[in-house]
Amino acid sequence: MSEPLPDLIEELVSDTQNDDPAAVLTTLANEDNVSIATLLEALPVEHRIPAWESLPQERKLDVLVEMRSDPREILIDATPDEEWTLMLADIEAEHLLELMDSLPNRLTALAFEALNTQQQRFFKEATQFNDNEIGHWISHEQLVLPISAKVKDGLRLMRHDIPTHGDTLFLLNGSGQFSAAVKLNQLFAAPPEMPLVELLVDNMPVLKGSDDIMQASLQVQRSGFAAVPVVDENNKLLGRLDITAASELVNENYERQVMASAGMDEDEDLFSPVAKSARNRALWLGINLVTAFLASWFIGLFEGTLQQVVALAVLMPVVASMGGIAGSQTLTLIVRGLALGQVTKANFRALMAKELKVGGVNGVVWALIIGVIAAFWFSDGALGLVICLAILINIVCAALAGVFLPMLLDKLNIDPALSGSVILTTVTDIVGFVAFLGLGTVFLL
Amino acid sequence: MSEPLPDLIEELVSDTQNDDPAAVLTTLANEDNVSIATLLEALPVEHRIPAWESLPQERKLDVLVEMRSDPREILIDATPDEEWTLMLADIEAEHLLELMDSLPNRLTALAFEALNTQQQRFFKEATQFNDNEIGHWISHEQLVLPISAKVKDGLRLMRHDIPTHGDTLFLLNGSGQFSAAVKLNQLFAAPPEMPLVELLVDNMPVLKGSDDIMQASLQVQRSGFAAVPVVDENNKLLGRLDITAASELVNENYERQVMASAGMDEDEDLFSPVAKSARNRALWLGINLVTAFLASWFIGLFEGTLQQVVALAVLMPVVASMGGIAGSQTLTLIVRGLALGQVTKANFRALMAKELKVGGVNGVVWALIIGVIAAFWFSDGALGLVICLAILINIVCAALAGVFLPMLLDKLNIDPALSGSVILTTVTDIVGFVAFLGLGTVFLL
Repeated sequence: MSEPLPDLIEELVSDTQNDDPAAVLTTLANEDNVSIATLLEALPVEHRIPAWESLPQERKLDVLVEMRSDPREILIDATPDEEWTLMLADIEAEHLLELMDSLPNRLTALAFEALNTQQQRFFKEATQFNDNEIGHWISHEQLVLPISAKVKDGLRLMRHDIPTHGDTLFLLNGSGQFSAAVKLNQLFAAPPEMPLVELLVDNMPVLKGSDDIMQASLQVQRSGFAAVPVVDENNKLLGRLDITAASELVNENYERQVMASAGMDEDEDLFSPVAKSARNRALWLGINLVTAFLASWFIGLFEGTLQQVVALAVLMPVVASMGGIAGSQTLTLIVRGLALGQVTKANFRALMAKELKVGGVNGVVWALIIGVIAAFWFSDGALGLVICLAILINIVCAALAGVFLPMLLDKLNIDPALSGSVILTTVTDIVGFVAFLGLGTVFLL
Repeated sequence: MSEPLPDLIEELVSDTQNDDPAAVLTTLANEDNVSIATLLEALPVEHRIPAWESLPQERKLDVLVEMRSDPREILIDATPDEEWTLMLADIEAEHLLELMDSLPNRLTALAFEALNTQQQRFFKEATQFNDNEIGHWISHEQLVLPISAKVKDGLRLMRHDIPTHGDTLFLLNGSGQFSAAVKLNQLFAAPPEMPLVELLVDNMPVLKGSDDIMQASLQVQRSGFAAVPVVDENNKLLGRLDITAASELVNENYERQVMASAGMDEDEDLFSPVAKSARNRALWLGINLVTAFLASWFIGLFEGTLQQVVALAVLMPVVASMGGIAGSQTLTLIVRGLALGQVTKANFRALMAKELKVGGVNGVVWALIIGVIAAFWFSDGALGLVICLAILINIVCAALAGVFLPMLLDKLNIDPALSGSVILTTVTDIVGFVAFLGLGTVFLL
């Protein structure tokens, strides 16, 4: 990146305001595809489309591949079909796999026709895997030699075919099964007649096509290799996962976690059309509404009590929110542990015990503090006792729910990062209100 | 990783239960350092320490480097000083920089003494940078030649010095300034007398030591190179940032975002001692308590109204939580945009306009739905009108706060991922309660 993003965004806004495609080109001249994609996403639609139209046609596909789906779809819709025919002329299977979800069917068909026979085969192979399996995302640029090859064969190959991010050669046996990997750097120092297999690296991980994308990508990141072989059930080499692709997949996964906590998609566009954005967010608001009305219904059970002791209504949010915060702390810790594979049935009991103790300690401490404040505020010792007990109960239940809920959701194959917090706060709201108002009914009436 | 983590965790728990160090060794025999670090973090302390003690001494430092601070500190405390002397025997600057925050001063001093002169210089150089600057995290394993070197010089170097994750040579001028990078793969095909500079790659990014770690690391990830040069203010080569280190930094940054949303640190231990964990979380609970009491105080202003119209108390959570959800959706989108550099003053007004429109649409839709439900539930049309208006006001204010607040915090250098949501929900709670109870006082009494 030649200039900081904010400056570039400002320049592009003014370039497009002045209706000056040449200026857009100058602004973007030294930027790589990812930076251009990031910039286009940051532009309001009325600037994004003219900036896109100013891009040289031969860069458009590469930029599109790097964008998030929602902002990308706006540009796909703005591109006329005759331009698509040119853009798709030398598309590869990998790009089509990346774009597929955003393309209308007629363009997917057009793109598929544009692939050569080999690329069509790669495309079909990849679509046999789910998009949460690593086989869907592999590339095929690996350097391959038979297991019997010598150093001189490796050197000959390297003189013709220099891959990006390729630091190893893969050796295959007669049935196309992955047998060994050799670091290219080793070829510099080795005698030409030496069998390559003598140079094999012994710590190369081998991924299965059906491996989970997050776990597989993390493995590539920490392997220390630029790319890792991916094989099928019979150990036949399918392709490779390189570290750039792995990093993109990991980053996307984290972004999904962050966005999911607010019930949003990682592809959400900063500048999506209002109707679309409102619709995207409505589901989460609707789910929340149901849970909020449920909490209200529980409060409604105590209408009589509230009428007589209005201080209970005043203090309700304190009880609910302390439980919500305590629970979400436990939940966040457990969700991370599940994502990293660190939370399992072997340590579940120990985790539960520890979180209950933490909840117990924080429950007692905060219950006492809040009890004293409430007692003084409303000059009512019994009210202080009631809120004290309610806070303690709610924080301990929150700890229980914070451990138990994500493990349960995970077992049910529901993403705990997405639905965990909304269910948890429903639990802590209801437990909090019922404990507080219930105890109030017993002790204060 | 030879076996899935859950199985390994189970094995380690039983190995340590049986007090069987040999079994621990067998379980961990084929695991890399990162996997062992992950496993140790997943063990309750009474299993973690014996598993750690069973590790071969020569692996301990490498495993420790890969762990999060909190679980790591437990192991550091459990290691006797005479073992430290052995473990630190061939420590490098990079490792010490990684461990420094967890080590007691006497061990940091011991480790510094154990560094050779060159490593001590690297260490001092790195500590001149803040730990959010990339200069703090660079390595020094780059291959370097003078700008006048020829292909044959490169080949000679490669015969002796084969770096991990090194796919390029860096060429320096007489003053040690970075001048060009050459891909090692290119050496295979080039004539020995050719000057290396003729092979230079033209898209190698160059980082400054003072660059922000997240932005710099993302640049390395998408560069397509295994490592990128890092220079000082005068363009003198300081070292390199390799893609493994860059990926670790990016992943940590995302984890911080996820954990910060619950007011926790990314170094939080699954099994930290109860007192420590309770203390870590108390701050966030305390901040929340202040905001909750603030909201209660606002509710208290309407005690008289609540006494007369108890339905208001029943429905309060609905108003507050709809605003909270709508606001946190906007907030999450803007926080991500800020982290990616996509939200700036050039698109701020457009973003504000769009979020206000989305808030307006969702506000009107949900206000009507909730108004109708409330009117029927309590058979009170005026109550329906009151909640309808309160919801609309709260959702629109939430959208405003969701855009404005993170930008303000970012300007003030406060992490919006950490404090954004607690401030936002305080705003939406108070606006919601005041609007609802205020309108109730006007229309329902």
